[in-house]
Amino acid sequence: MLTLYYAPGTIALASLIALEEAGADYTTQRLNFADEDQKKPSYLAINPKARVPSLVTERGILTETPAILIYICQQYPAAAMAPLDDPFELARVQSFNAYLCSTVHVAHAHLRRGTRWADDPAAIKNMKAMVPKTVGACFRVINDEIFVGPYVMGDQCTVADFYLFVLSGWLERDSVDIATLPKIHSHHELLSERPSVTRALAMQSA
Amino acid sequence: MLTLYYAPGTIALASLIALEEAGADYTTQRLNFADEDQKKPSYLAINPKARVPSLVTERGILTETPAILIYICQQYPAAAMAPLDDPFELARVQSFNAYLCSTVHVAHAHLRRGTRWADDPAAIKNMKAMVPKTVGACFRVINDEIFVGPYVMGDQCTVADFYLFVLSGWLERDSVDIATLPKIHSHHELLSERPSVTRALAMQSA
Repeated sequence: MLTLYYAPGTIALASLIALEEAGADYTTQRLNFADEDQKKPSYLAINPKARVPSLVTERGILTETPAILIYICQQYPAAAMAPLDDPFELARVQSFNAYLCSTVHVAHAHLRRGTRWADDPAAIKNMKAMVPKTVGACFRVINDEIFVGPYVMGDQCTVADFYLFVLSGWLERDSVDIATLPKIHSHHELLSERPSVTRALAMQSA
Repeated sequence: MLTLYYAPGTIALASLIALEEAGADYTTQRLNFADEDQKKPSYLAINPKARVPSLVTERGILTETPAILIYICQQYPAAAMAPLDDPFELARVQSFNAYLCSTVHVAHAHLRRGTRWADDPAAIKNMKAMVPKTVGACFRVINDEIFVGPYVMGDQCTVADFYLFVLSGWLERDSVDIATLPKIHSHHELLSERPSVTRALAMQSA
């Protein structure tokens, strides 16, 4: 039995979608970021980095979205959420996920999490003002250079799609017009209709 | 035949070490960041994100350190640089690598790459001033909570060790005293003596 620690409105949604897509036997533990649940000792014992998601398994605890996503793929190979038997194709998925976590999500985080990297209110304001440009540039690279279609990697829907779906869902908040990114826009609409996605969205809104 | 595009003094060193450790059949293409080689059309055709490393394979081009590292592990399983047959242990390695790329390297990047996220010189200065604190906090989590020893994951030297070695080599520049991080300090010295590491360091200094 797996247990996913998540908070609504966070990147943990990607792992929640993957668990739903897999038909996994799992439970959830919900954190309330408004109450700073992620900084309480009970959660720091799960994840000393004070972030979500965390996935508790029978073998131990896993953190970081790219690691959790591929682990779920490996635990539920029948769901075919990653090209596990082709190291090059798997590396393409991993490369995409690494770009999302190291560059795209980080660009977005400067909107509301500027205190991670600055303590001067004027600096935080400047970082916030740059977000439409930086996030927009990341998504332009994805739209123009990386995205194959109809899914990120081509014909197969992978965990990279769930990860992108969550981040493209934040574009409006980032003041980036998704209509200027036609492939990302179509992809977001395609994923919105996927049953695993609608179930996961309903769970985090419940 | 693999070709690694790298620049001296960058995170590409981790992939260079992995190729050396694997005894891989590979060549290198060196970029000069002072000349902004990474922004020239010839390199943007390799990697439109204008970053290193890029690994050119017979199947296509791979980017992003976590993806390249695991791909090298899979291409050279005899080198035993990752627990490829144990999904949970592999996920631990991936989790560590994802933390390095999404949080630790990003904290470091605010020292000299502040223009990625701000355009006000005062903001960039403020971000720079925060680096000892933010990078220090990341390494404190690694030292106190994650690192097993003698290698990151325990008894087996993995690509996570090469990745950590490169980032811990930047601590002095980040104004973080490695002596306050005893496990990281010992690890850096242990890795410094590894033949694959000394060869890779010599290559990038040549």
